[in-house]
Amino acid sequence: MAAEPKYLTGDKVALNEFIDKFDTFLFDCDGVLWSGDHVYEGVPETLQLLRSKGWVLTAPLTFTPHSPLTGKRTVFVTNNSTKSRGEYAKKLNGLDIPSDVEDVFGSAYSSAVYISRILKLPAGKNKVFVIGEAGVEKELASEGVPFIGGTDENFRRDITPADFQGIADGSLLDPEVGIVLCGLDFHINYLKLAHGLHYLRRGAIFLATNIDSTLPLHHDLFLGAGSVMVPLANASGQKPLELGKPSQAMMDAIEGKFQLDRSKTCMIGDRLNTDIKFGIEGKLGGTLHVQTGVDKKEDWQKKDAIAVPSFYVDKLSDLRHAA
Amino acid sequence: MAAEPKYLTGDKVALNEFIDKFDTFLFDCDGVLWSGDHVYEGVPETLQLLRSKGWVLTAPLTFTPHSPLTGKRTVFVTNNSTKSRGEYAKKLNGLDIPSDVEDVFGSAYSSAVYISRILKLPAGKNKVFVIGEAGVEKELASEGVPFIGGTDENFRRDITPADFQGIADGSLLDPEVGIVLCGLDFHINYLKLAHGLHYLRRGAIFLATNIDSTLPLHHDLFLGAGSVMVPLANASGQKPLELGKPSQAMMDAIEGKFQLDRSKTCMIGDRLNTDIKFGIEGKLGGTLHVQTGVDKKEDWQKKDAIAVPSFYVDKLSDLRHAA
Repeated sequence: MAAEPKYLTGDKVALNEFIDKFDTFLFDCDGVLWSGDHVYEGVPETLQLLRSKGWVLTAPLTFTPHSPLTGKRTVFVTNNSTKSRGEYAKKLNGLDIPSDVEDVFGSAYSSAVYISRILKLPAGKNKVFVIGEAGVEKELASEGVPFIGGTDENFRRDITPADFQGIADGSLLDPEVGIVLCGLDFHINYLKLAHGLHYLRRGAIFLATNIDSTLPLHHDLFLGAGSVMVPLANASGQKPLELGKPSQAMMDAIEGKFQLDRSKTCMIGDRLNTDIKFGIEGKLGGTLHVQTGVDKKEDWQKKDAIAVPSFYVDKLSDLRHAA
Repeated sequence: MAAEPKYLTGDKVALNEFIDKFDTFLFDCDGVLWSGDHVYEGVPETLQLLRSKGWVLTAPLTFTPHSPLTGKRTVFVTNNSTKSRGEYAKKLNGLDIPSDVEDVFGSAYSSAVYISRILKLPAGKNKVFVIGEAGVEKELASEGVPFIGGTDENFRRDITPADFQGIADGSLLDPEVGIVLCGLDFHINYLKLAHGLHYLRRGAIFLATNIDSTLPLHHDLFLGAGSVMVPLANASGQKPLELGKPSQAMMDAIEGKFQLDRSKTCMIGDRLNTDIKFGIEGKLGGTLHVQTGVDKKEDWQKKDAIAVPSFYVDKLSDLRHAA
């Protein structure tokens, strides 16, 4: 059984011990830093504080965010596939969290890297049918992966009798498609789902950027990528390989890219089944649960909790109260 | 363990015994009578034969299809909610199966009857948010049930930032909605799903016309009502009460309406998890499985088969070869 999570809010000694224990913090974004476009109070200052907390005592007073020699490293690990890493960096900067594209690791990028560097399907069979928004397309393009679907207006319309016929007989399907990749798609419709289903029925590999069932927005929950993908799983009887948190494919990619020491890395998140599970299964030095998102402490206090963090705070900015 | 299903095709004696055993045949339609708009060869003649097979030996040579005194009674029990009973009768007539609205029992009708006669929510809290096509709307209207959504063009569009805000704060939600009813919807989109989810999160009752995961069409499978509904189940964590086959709410309604003797009634269908299960759980005198639809005999020959029929034929028209 896991040890009781340590509550850090308001406990200066514990907060300092917590921060000293880690070199690198992996942050979930939605529900931790912000909800939708509303950044939580004190978050930029908290990030700045962590980045200025050098683990080398002689750290200079000025710092660059990415150098481990000058402060804690902060990486934003998001399952939101609607934005590319570049767009995420822009959002972070706009919310007073200075960042660049290399600080971000998103599920769309994780998926593109998996397809281009791990799957490596042969040309002529390596096209991706995308259910998702522009973020997925941009990351696929950046990895040189061919794709159809996505934001193409030809797929943003009602299905017609001719579509049913052409999908069933295959005349409307692209024979080069070998992968169906499903992310969050605000333009989901029957036409896209019918194409996705039929590529799967013809043997395409089924991937999901992530399988979050819900999406926090406006202090409420909307449908997440997992709820956009689930019609395909239900109709095909197949489960996708998921490439966002808590998939360890994503953790391996992060470790490889950032050369991090897992024992000195902490995952910070609001969801037990993605963030906290991701950190635990990745054997990180710790996991920190915040109460500002989807899951609350009541959820890990349950007997059958899906994952139990090692630390928790009320909100991320409580970390500011370290010395 | 269930007895080995009896194979009837080509066995004249067994076919006659089978037909003599029953007064009433409940027919699934898609995959039994037709696939899409293609009626299977010999089906109209088979229906005519059954209807002419009197269980009263003095039956007149001319018959009306609905009179149990002149032949076997045939009832079309369909989970397809996109058409109303009237539209189904029209389709049957167009395919040379003379029928009227009273010969049809559909999941949209079953849902409307459940809402109006069983649930009976108070006025001001009894409006239905519909995910589905015109068939659902027509049956709700025929039972005097108020509804929104459905085929309304205002819901057949992309979701906007203002929608997210208004759904989250409730200003775009109708306070009279007390039920979310989900059927097959070829115009499913994020906007409808977001509305459905938020009515559920505010306590609306979750109903499904049926939960078939797939829809047979053009000798292939598309997404069924269950795959259109499943995003709501996945995002809300709730399961709908289903009102189509194999729900016994539907069987009870059919029994009440047709005053049938269950022991002399046979369910004929292609799907184990809907049709055959429906007949077995309804304690009918028998179930007949045809090989022209979704499930094949290999499916009930499996060790963990979801339901095993009492009879099977290759195709419905094999019944014609009775004496």
